[in-house]
Amino acid sequence: MTRPIFLLTDFGLTDTYVGIVKSVILSILPTACLVDLTHDIPPQDVRAGAYALLTVAPYLPTDAIVVAVVDPGVGTDRRPVAAQVDGRTFIGPDNGLLSWALATLTAASSPSAGEPTPIRAVVLDHPEVWLPNVSATFHGRDIFAPVAAHLASGLPLSTIGTPTDTLRSLVLPSVEREANDGGAVLAARGEVIHVDRYGNLITNVLAADVPANPVTNVDDFEVRGVAAHYQAGDGPLLALIGSSGRLEISAPNASAAAMTGAGVGATVVVTSADAA
Amino acid sequence: MTRPIFLLTDFGLTDTYVGIVKSVILSILPTACLVDLTHDIPPQDVRAGAYALLTVAPYLPTDAIVVAVVDPGVGTDRRPVAAQVDGRTFIGPDNGLLSWALATLTAASSPSAGEPTPIRAVVLDHPEVWLPNVSATFHGRDIFAPVAAHLASGLPLSTIGTPTDTLRSLVLPSVEREANDGGAVLAARGEVIHVDRYGNLITNVLAADVPANPVTNVDDFEVRGVAAHYQAGDGPLLALIGSSGRLEISAPNASAAAMTGAGVGATVVVTSADAA
Amino acid sequence: MTRPIFLLTDFGLTDTYVGIVKSVILSILPTACLVDLTHDIPPQDVRAGAYALLTVAPYLPTDAIVVAVVDPGVGTDRRPVAAQVDGRTFIGPDNGLLSWALATLTAASSPSAGEPTPIRAVVLDHPEVWLPNVSATFHGRDIFAPVAAHLASGLPLSTIGTPTDTLRSLVLPSVEREANDGGAVLAARGEVIHVDRYGNLITNVLAADVPANPVTNVDDFEVRGVAAHYQAGDGPLLALIGSSGRLEISAPNASAAAMTGAGVGATVVVTSADAA
Repeated sequence: MTRPIFLLTDFGLTDTYVGIVKSVILSILPTACLVDLTHDIPPQDVRAGAYALLTVAPYLPTDAIVVAVVDPGVGTDRRPVAAQVDGRTFIGPDNGLLSWALATLTAASSPSAGEPTPIRAVVLDHPEVWLPNVSATFHGRDIFAPVAAHLASGLPLSTIGTPTDTLRSLVLPSVEREANDGGAVLAARGEVIHVDRYGNLITNVLAADVPANPVTNVDDFEVRGVAAHYQAGDGPLLALIGSSGRLEISAPNASAAAMTGAGVGATVVVTSADAA
Repeated sequence: MTRPIFLLTDFGLTDTYVGIVKSVILSILPTACLVDLTHDIPPQDVRAGAYALLTVAPYLPTDAIVVAVVDPGVGTDRRPVAAQVDGRTFIGPDNGLLSWALATLTAASSPSAGEPTPIRAVVLDHPEVWLPNVSATFHGRDIFAPVAAHLASGLPLSTIGTPTDTLRSLVLPSVEREANDGGAVLAARGEVIHVDRYGNLITNVLAADVPANPVTNVDDFEVRGVAAHYQAGDGPLLALIGSSGRLEISAPNASAAAMTGAGVGATVVVTSADAA
Repeated sequence: MTRPIFLLTDFGLTDTYVGIVKSVILSILPTACLVDLTHDIPPQDVRAGAYALLTVAPYLPTDAIVVAVVDPGVGTDRRPVAAQVDGRTFIGPDNGLLSWALATLTAASSPSAGEPTPIRAVVLDHPEVWLPNVSATFHGRDIFAPVAAHLASGLPLSTIGTPTDTLRSLVLPSVEREANDGGAVLAARGEVIHVDRYGNLITNVLAADVPANPVTNVDDFEVRGVAAHYQAGDGPLLALIGSSGRLEISAPNASAAAMTGAGVGATVVVTSADAA
């Protein structure tokens, strides 16, 4: 059995770009197992792609290969790279797209000694494992797809590129915390980092950032408490810890995004009702 | 070979929810065969999901496992269930989503004696086949996906849950028929139950409900006869028996929905021109 | 291992039509390898489907089976066909949908003698390899899917239909070229044949049609030169040779379609700055 190949791009499903990538992989490796993560990253939105990859990373099979392509700099001197944490390998442009997934896996898979698992990265500079003709506009087809097929068929990382220690990272928007002398969180200030299909406003505030008896404010809206599920809560809006462990603002059977008008980047402030 | 797993959700393809579900399944069962039915059920529209599942049910392989998730009550006390008819197994929330597909398969697979095939259902209450941490908001990932993977790998239904005899059902909108003394249909009154991508108005009126020389009325529009195919007919609209055996109103090379303004729930009356 | 089956339709992903086609194939051939090319061809737009198939054809595995369905004439006397070039087989309605892909493969796979590879085509007229009941509206399910499954499992072309020499073709919009006595192109006049997700305006002008020091005009917009990649160029618009070898007009990190208002069918004129 070959290693499964997961695809995450901004190619959309209307054009044949995804179909071409899959055709190239299957031409090299007819037994490939291909899985779509999403192809609906907004065009050229590297940050949104990095966030999407972050959400799925912990659930990937431990031998997964991921081809991730959100690549506004295709054809420029930005480097094509592959990076491995434990058994999982990520292939894509070196523009920060892979960075949040790599960071979370490095931290999560920390072995017993407490040291984070090292990332092994290579610059893809072995054209013999690419398509013969490389375009300036479609490295997903010409470089990333054939490299993924060769890796899935068993080639080691060392045969596809040259080791590098410097991968570009995106800065994760940080959460400002206010704590008392005992270290208990009194308030946290973060932002909306994703709006999902249901209109849930997903923030970068983690469960550990949320004070006791929380009051969450986003724009002019205030939500009290943390609900146990999407149907709980008193008002039209509720706050809860979503499936990725982050605070989100939701509306039972409705869209919190539509109700509040808030989107990615909106400031979210969580205070404690106890502090008043 | 493992049993194929089919997925039908309201997760959409823009977020990574579907990708995460597939990652969980492949982590447990690397040889899984995964097939998308649709992920574009309108958010939380259980009825639309039930209809979609109904349309595909008769064509599923006889050993299919279906994971169906349209689940506004996730995290509440609504039960996670699995139900089996002959060899096919459906996994999802017990909110009626599975009910139309189960009903149609029970009726269709009736053995020679004329008795409908029994449904074997279990409540999913064996956490040892779930992910270790179950969120309140994403049972597709935490419960349904791992259960499907274990079933596909060969576990019997009895190892994933406790038998139940009570599954929730949605009421199928019924068709009112008027017949003469000989039982021949004179008129039928039903409704539009789905609008497809082409703008076809698909009704709950079955072929057997349609009187001789039919005249179909939807809103202010009247269509005479039953066309043999989408290019037949005199007017801008035509009526025909669609691929699921239901009467539908269509517009050659155009959208009947756009032309009529009718949508799901619109009343459809079919009378006989002979009766005038 | 069975031959991989690729799907290209105008069914969309919201209805269950694609899911039903896959269910039918897997019911006949449980080991089928199914790959989506795209299902988002605009409803009944045969020309757009032919273009999509053309873009992917050269990258298909050499034993690929393609089921292509954009079929406004389903149920009429238009013929269902299968056509083979070298090892690749295309199945669909005989309405021109397959013609551009077949033409490009015939030309590309020309053996050493310079003769184009012949196309072997059959009319699908062996109902014993179809579903038992054939509807007038869904041959994708009833004819094309089962035929593909049987071909993938190893049945030869001769067992599914009767040879034919006449397949319908769509006319590819042609490029008018003006050349000097030495044969060098001085000017070319073509049109936009596709707008992709990024808003790139893809034309039918091939690299060989582009004169030296080109100046490209689309509507009221003028673009000088041919850029090396999507980030190059002086102005808000640039022209480059895209991944399919065709001239395209692009806007760095933006949509050229939105910027120009041009769409499919817009005239594109390329002249040489040297000629002025």
